[in-house]
Amino acid sequence: MRILITAGGTAEKIDQVRSITNHSSGSLGVQLAKAALAKGNLTVDYIVAKGAMLPPKDPRITLHPIENTADLQKIMRQLLEKQTYLAVIHAMAVSDFTPAVSLSQESFIQGMNTWLQQKTDSQFTEDELAKLLTVLEAQQEDATKISSKTEHLFMVLKQTPKVISQIKELQPDTLLVGFKLLVDVAEEELLAVAQKALVKNQADYVLANDLTSINAGQHHGYLLDAKGVVAKANTKKAIAHLILDTILERKQSL
Amino acid sequence: MRILITAGGTAEKIDQVRSITNHSSGSLGVQLAKAALAKGNLTVDYIVAKGAMLPPKDPRITLHPIENTADLQKIMRQLLEKQTYLAVIHAMAVSDFTPAVSLSQESFIQGMNTWLQQKTDSQFTEDELAKLLTVLEAQQEDATKISSKTEHLFMVLKQTPKVISQIKELQPDTLLVGFKLLVDVAEEELLAVAQKALVKNQADYVLANDLTSINAGQHHGYLLDAKGVVAKANTKKAIAHLILDTILERKQSL
Repeated sequence: MRILITAGGTAEKIDQVRSITNHSSGSLGVQLAKAALAKGNLTVDYIVAKGAMLPPKDPRITLHPIENTADLQKIMRQLLEKQTYLAVIHAMAVSDFTPAVSLSQESFIQGMNTWLQQKTDSQFTEDELAKLLTVLEAQQEDATKISSKTEHLFMVLKQTPKVISQIKELQPDTLLVGFKLLVDVAEEELLAVAQKALVKNQADYVLANDLTSINAGQHHGYLLDAKGVVAKANTKKAIAHLILDTILERKQSL
Repeated sequence: MRILITAGGTAEKIDQVRSITNHSSGSLGVQLAKAALAKGNLTVDYIVAKGAMLPPKDPRITLHPIENTADLQKIMRQLLEKQTYLAVIHAMAVSDFTPAVSLSQESFIQGMNTWLQQKTDSQFTEDELAKLLTVLEAQQEDATKISSKTEHLFMVLKQTPKVISQIKELQPDTLLVGFKLLVDVAEEELLAVAQKALVKNQADYVLANDLTSINAGQHHGYLLDAKGVVAKANTKKAIAHLILDTILERKQSL
């Protein structure tokens, strides 16, 4: 049987020397890979973002290195079309936004003046926003590296495609395990948001965790299914084993 | 004798889970540390950005890990006030900008409407820019993690302090080696820009390099002083030895 694990954090380029990165050491992914090998008869495809920790070298693990969300989308599609997975465990921290426009203060001022001339509404409506974005995009210099001399930099970022929502479309029968990381919220809110994400992404399970409860050695996580909390675990290793045990048990009951 | 080396790339937080990072593996820094040890009687303070390669463990090297430009500025000042350095070799890729405002599309629209009501000039002048920035700053939500649901994210970044320009002010007699990385420019432009940076930062030497000439194994760099090109080197190791040899020679001639 084969499973797909994603791990690490993606990086979206601003220019040739700068990126917006999502933090993720990749260590939970490593624990997932180790747990998958420990459980016996599993082969692992492992999509890993640049800079993340790597799982131990093992002939049963195939690494697929990527950098950004577009890479992830491409390799995910390729793998899901080629292989059948018992489960996809999507632990990667994926960028929600990617830079669309980056302007120096000087270019932004020019762009704002161009837009003011075109403006037809006294209010800043969604239509005016669309106009402004078109002007700012046209204003974007052909810069391979943004000048460091301008006083302010103005950036517009656009949403990246939601890769997780494509997984079940490509492979309806795989067990999808998503992750939801929030920062400093009440347990109730964390679980509610994770439950919503489960429904939205057609996930079978979501591992809900809060950044404030993750620190040296400790990593509190709740594994949810459509009915609610399946179990809680308190270290990355325990979370990894909980996920693997849960999907293998589910497999036997199918 | 003691030298100070900086290496790796800084990361400026957007929120708790995202940063703007400057790419730098830190491997040139590692070569510099190795060259410093190979040349004999040198003790090394090594300021290293998170995620960068580390030099070999050696009692003559003291690591000072940092994350962002503010950290760098602080530790640089502490070290320069405490120790006397033969040279400061500032190979770190330092963020020129740090996030000042990050707004969802909804908040940006609100902010633009507030500014339009306050606007007194038909042109978008620097005064209007200052007004707009004040409004957008006030619009900044108290968000520990930016919502991933908004269609566009609007960011204003401000310049970080130029740490390199403070080095000679704190320690006028140290030999300062700066770095200038450009992307895909003619050799003439690269050298001219590097020469300007040398004067501006009161550096004794600048290592000028172009990202397009850096790839597996190869790394073309020109070492400049106030009079022009001192020498060229074609690998990270050769660049490291060129820099160390040059500052040690200069020391003997003083």
